[in-house]
Amino acid sequence: MADRMLMKGNEALAEAAVRAGCKYFFGYPITPQNEIPEYMSRRLPEVGGVYLQAESEVASINMVFGGAGTGKRVMTSSSSPGISLMSEGISYLAGAELPCVIMNIVRGGPGLGGILPAQSDYFQATRGGGHGDYRLLVLAPSTLQEGVDLTTLAFDLAEKYRNPVMILGDGFMGQMMEAVEFKESSSSTDSSDAEEWAVGYMGKRGKRALVKSLYLDPEELEQHNHKLQKKYDAMTQNEVRYESYQMEGAEIVLAAYGTTARIARSAIMNLRKEGVPVGMIRPITVFPFPYAPFENLSPEKVKDILVVEMSMGQMIDDVKIGVGKDIPISFFGRCGGIAPSVKEIEDQIRKIAG
Amino acid sequence: MADRMLMKGNEALAEAAVRAGCKYFFGYPITPQNEIPEYMSRRLPEVGGVYLQAESEVASINMVFGGAGTGKRVMTSSSSPGISLMSEGISYLAGAELPCVIMNIVRGGPGLGGILPAQSDYFQATRGGGHGDYRLLVLAPSTLQEGVDLTTLAFDLAEKYRNPVMILGDGFMGQMMEAVEFKESSSSTDSSDAEEWAVGYMGKRGKRALVKSLYLDPEELEQHNHKLQKKYDAMTQNEVRYESYQMEGAEIVLAAYGTTARIARSAIMNLRKEGVPVGMIRPITVFPFPYAPFENLSPEKVKDILVVEMSMGQMIDDVKIGVGKDIPISFFGRCGGIAPSVKEIEDQIRKIAG
Amino acid sequence: MADRMLMKGNEALAEAAVRAGCKYFFGYPITPQNEIPEYMSRRLPEVGGVYLQAESEVASINMVFGGAGTGKRVMTSSSSPGISLMSEGISYLAGAELPCVIMNIVRGGPGLGGILPAQSDYFQATRGGGHGDYRLLVLAPSTLQEGVDLTTLAFDLAEKYRNPVMILGDGFMGQMMEAVEFKESSSSTDSSDAEEWAVGYMGKRGKRALVKSLYLDPEELEQHNHKLQKKYDAMTQNEVRYESYQMEGAEIVLAAYGTTARIARSAIMNLRKEGVPVGMIRPITVFPFPYAPFENLSPEKVKDILVVEMSMGQMIDDVKIGVGKDIPISFFGRCGGIAPSVKEIEDQIRKIAG
Amino acid sequence: MADRMLMKGNEALAEAAVRAGCKYFFGYPITPQNEIPEYMSRRLPEVGGVYLQAESEVASINMVFGGAGTGKRVMTSSSSPGISLMSEGISYLAGAELPCVIMNIVRGGPGLGGILPAQSDYFQATRGGGHGDYRLLVLAPSTLQEGVDLTTLAFDLAEKYRNPVMILGDGFMGQMMEAVEFKESSSSTDSSDAEEWAVGYMGKRGKRALVKSLYLDPEELEQHNHKLQKKYDAMTQNEVRYESYQMEGAEIVLAAYGTTARIARSAIMNLRKEGVPVGMIRPITVFPFPYAPFENLSPEKVKDILVVEMSMGQMIDDVKIGVGKDIPISFFGRCGGIAPSVKEIEDQIRKIAG
Repeated sequence: MADRMLMKGNEALAEAAVRAGCKYFFGYPITPQNEIPEYMSRRLPEVGGVYLQAESEVASINMVFGGAGTGKRVMTSSSSPGISLMSEGISYLAGAELPCVIMNIVRGGPGLGGILPAQSDYFQATRGGGHGDYRLLVLAPSTLQEGVDLTTLAFDLAEKYRNPVMILGDGFMGQMMEAVEFKESSSSTDSSDAEEWAVGYMGKRGKRALVKSLYLDPEELEQHNHKLQKKYDAMTQNEVRYESYQMEGAEIVLAAYGTTARIARSAIMNLRKEGVPVGMIRPITVFPFPYAPFENLSPEKVKDILVVEMSMGQMIDDVKIGVGKDIPISFFGRCGGIAPSVKEIEDQIRKIAG
Repeated sequence: MADRMLMKGNEALAEAAVRAGCKYFFGYPITPQNEIPEYMSRRLPEVGGVYLQAESEVASINMVFGGAGTGKRVMTSSSSPGISLMSEGISYLAGAELPCVIMNIVRGGPGLGGILPAQSDYFQATRGGGHGDYRLLVLAPSTLQEGVDLTTLAFDLAEKYRNPVMILGDGFMGQMMEAVEFKESSSSTDSSDAEEWAVGYMGKRGKRALVKSLYLDPEELEQHNHKLQKKYDAMTQNEVRYESYQMEGAEIVLAAYGTTARIARSAIMNLRKEGVPVGMIRPITVFPFPYAPFENLSPEKVKDILVVEMSMGQMIDDVKIGVGKDIPISFFGRCGGIAPSVKEIEDQIRKIAG
Repeated sequence: MADRMLMKGNEALAEAAVRAGCKYFFGYPITPQNEIPEYMSRRLPEVGGVYLQAESEVASINMVFGGAGTGKRVMTSSSSPGISLMSEGISYLAGAELPCVIMNIVRGGPGLGGILPAQSDYFQATRGGGHGDYRLLVLAPSTLQEGVDLTTLAFDLAEKYRNPVMILGDGFMGQMMEAVEFKESSSSTDSSDAEEWAVGYMGKRGKRALVKSLYLDPEELEQHNHKLQKKYDAMTQNEVRYESYQMEGAEIVLAAYGTTARIARSAIMNLRKEGVPVGMIRPITVFPFPYAPFENLSPEKVKDILVVEMSMGQMIDDVKIGVGKDIPISFFGRCGGIAPSVKEIEDQIRKIAG
Repeated sequence: MADRMLMKGNEALAEAAVRAGCKYFFGYPITPQNEIPEYMSRRLPEVGGVYLQAESEVASINMVFGGAGTGKRVMTSSSSPGISLMSEGISYLAGAELPCVIMNIVRGGPGLGGILPAQSDYFQATRGGGHGDYRLLVLAPSTLQEGVDLTTLAFDLAEKYRNPVMILGDGFMGQMMEAVEFKESSSSTDSSDAEEWAVGYMGKRGKRALVKSLYLDPEELEQHNHKLQKKYDAMTQNEVRYESYQMEGAEIVLAAYGTTARIARSAIMNLRKEGVPVGMIRPITVFPFPYAPFENLSPEKVKDILVVEMSMGQMIDDVKIGVGKDIPISFFGRCGGIAPSVKEIEDQIRKIAG
């Protein structure tokens, strides 16, 4: 049986994590995601879990490494500058093949920037802010309900691939209040195959697990990189998620994700009523990116692709890779904490529609 | 008059920085770039400068922020995990429009990885490991001499654009020994227009400079982002650098940078002697990326583009953006501290030449 | 009903703390007390408590401050250098009148020194390593059983006086194995009057408690100091504890505490059998120091006082203050991890006995 | 030739240090001593020295350890809570026998306390806030001129004994403005015998110096403690400094140091005019303490000793050790940032004089 509740975004995401079996949270406060750690600090003790506020984001992500290394469901959350501080640790988690969930409730940058919502961490999320050949699996919910559902999925995928999974949210989602439904989940706290690899177990191998990202022998490190790549290829094969919205007969195709896509949807709805043939491809996973629907667009039918972001243009690179050069690609973005309005998007579309 | 000397790569890069007017260095040790800080610790006091080993990379980059904020020529260097730790600070430097030079002598990753050379930080360098809409100007030398020359250029460009500039090197360049020539440079220690913006001055504005990346008003933050973008556009307009090697009549085009390009050059030389029509486009700046020479490739003439990297394939994204879909793009990479050999590259080319 | 068990010293002290209602432990590892945190890390979760290894001793003691401020029974343990790092925090705890228990399992110093037992932190314990006019209540057990009993007492006294209480042990006690009995205790986890002063309560005062050691107004700070002094005076009035051993007819009086007193006891027993009139005053509290029994020694009867310590002579100052100048005071000490032997003490006594 | 200038106390102390050959300063800001680091940050570069603000007091004192280990003249300064944070490092410096000067411009405590002057760190200064058997040589100037002179002496004594020397000042001295004279000094920057023991030298011993406080072998550590003790005995033999003021025929003897003694002097002057037979013993070194003048007081002549401190009574312990029980000892103290007034001290004396 599912529970339906009216909740604030950040709290709903936190509750979703707890229901997905997350028992350990390590973090450091930063606006606009503070309700996540706050909620976790109250909620985790109720389920026998542990909430720990670390002395910094660098410490947080290393505690996540420690917790994840034991095979438990572990999470951290932060906002843009805090995620940057976690870059080294995230690369270590990926290198050591540890599952965990990282929520980035993005705010405007660069630097301190502002505390209002943005989508300017797309590059960081999809190309790994950290060093080395690694990838995060990145889920970009567009509504709070989707955020809740993807949080459950995030924990499952993290374990399936033994890789960090990022929820790429933004301050709008974190601060809004909406009714959400928590579906029943059969998730357990422990990684199902933790005995195979997590520290503290003495499994079939008959020797203690060693969790590490260090491979001093270059042959070994190269093999390790190939093993990781195979995993990223499998993600690309199996985990691409996107939504096609009003794509039938669409001559103008919007590309947008997250809150921006939600706003774009209203613009599309309005314009379709007026007969403007506009649709949208909405990536739900931004890594792996849904290149296929963009590759499949026909230059005969589609006359323009409009990328809309709350940034100066980052996802546009992936759209270009997908589309190539036969269809014009244009961009509209707002930033600094400002979301594109329905009206602004409509205007952009109308301009293209001529 | 120029000085010609036989030097170890890391030391030559450090000496080049000193001759470019760098007086302040803040860093933390990590293999394989330790000769840079070591050299700086001896050399800077001789020119009235200051070398400071910070307590961590996070501290280092914040000290760079402090130093750069006074309008002086400041540098740090590190290798991959250390650069990740600097991600937040780098985003702050870009956000506050501060000039500085950051050397990344890349090693194999992810995580601790190994201590041998790699090119797996391309994404981090070109898409900003940090958060927010910002860009580094990234110079990728292919030989030690070019490293020395680009280091001088790096300081000049950093000031010209008031933006961090990264030298993207690798352990081969850092550890090799070669003769290098230090050309005369008219560089001064102080940013030429420091009085306009640096702390400690009281210029025309009649009030003390404030160096910051915080803009709580979203309108202001958006304007600030547009100002930054204009700068990145100007870089894209003015600073693209690349080398065309044996491109006349080339039917197979290699794309490679840094040490890998140096190796690829030998392979091309060998195969050209055999009559194989192969050439190379070698990006010298990887941001801004030289899209034009790739865009200009004719599908009638070029039958394949082979991207070669010491990574699992990162620059390949930029090549795809440049080339589009009309010419096949293939990839060959080694990683974990292993460079592709001349023979391996020749084999790849022969296979394509088929 | 009491439990009797054979236990290692450090573990017995930890178990005693748990039975005294300690639910929160914050610490950082250092030899020779590591069995305390190790035991706590296993044991506290069983009683619904929390064990946290901090990133340093500075962090530990500040976490103790936080925990103690909520009115819960909180403890830390360390050894000499670690206690020095806690000095600032201890002064803050005393200044803010927070109850807590601090175990110092002393090792040889100064600096890193060695890892073997010593009594060279007597000054630090009794005169406050930290700054400002404050005192710890310091309990110096001589046997493991006494250590267990004094640990229970420590938590009670900490709350009674709202002041940190130190258990001044040494590596011998920490590492030895002995049978100990845990008496039943009616201790609760919460400070009985926590509602009056601890954060998180909204008591009679009708406003939230503020826990602080900052008083910017000098009049207020002086008053605060007088309030604290009254407390220290009350301790001096009520809490002095010592043991008189074989003092009847004693012409030579030993002054020793802790493990040293235990060894001295054997020497006295042996010599009494030979008819040497030797006794001992053994301080159990070293602050407040039992001056009275020393003040009451009669110059007509006592011809020498022999202070024995595992240090270069620190308690000797308190003995001098108590005795004055009418009885000669001599000193015998070993240090660096070496305890005086029974034989050595006998020799010293014989020399005095002439 | 001497220079005479009107200067603020903290700045005069800093200038005295520079003239005594101090070239390296490491510290962290805290009121009321901030003018010392501020002055040093400007002044040291002028003499080819280095000023470094560390990230904390713990870091500062460890940088002092590093600098002192090279045989250079190094200093730090702080105020009460900051000195507590340095306790571990101070014990390391003493254990490794490293010369340095530490200025404590004492403020009211405990904990954060206030920012106004106090003398409540006497115990910490004289009994070593840190762990292990070690002592600081502690100089307690009463006027700014004496502060300047003792600062020169401090550097000389630090080297003579290879031991940290503390200047125990207070906020009054730090903040007052007075004319001071800088006498010529022949001090050099380097410890005269640094080649014998400092790192970086390869002296007679023919092997690199090792600076350490770790002695894992207990016999060795005990020997090391005896060596240190011999040094403290030599200090006690040679370095006791005190002033006898109006002691001829004195029936009431004040014991006071630092600023308090300066105020007491006025009270004594006033009362002597009225014929009250009052004098003062003013310790200039508080370790080693001038026990002799107190031991030599005759119970026939002196009817009361009045200890005056800006604390709740700490030096009183040393006075008791010196005097014994044949002369009554009374105490008058103010604290929290308040100094005893001339009038208050006169009143106390009158009360005793009866």
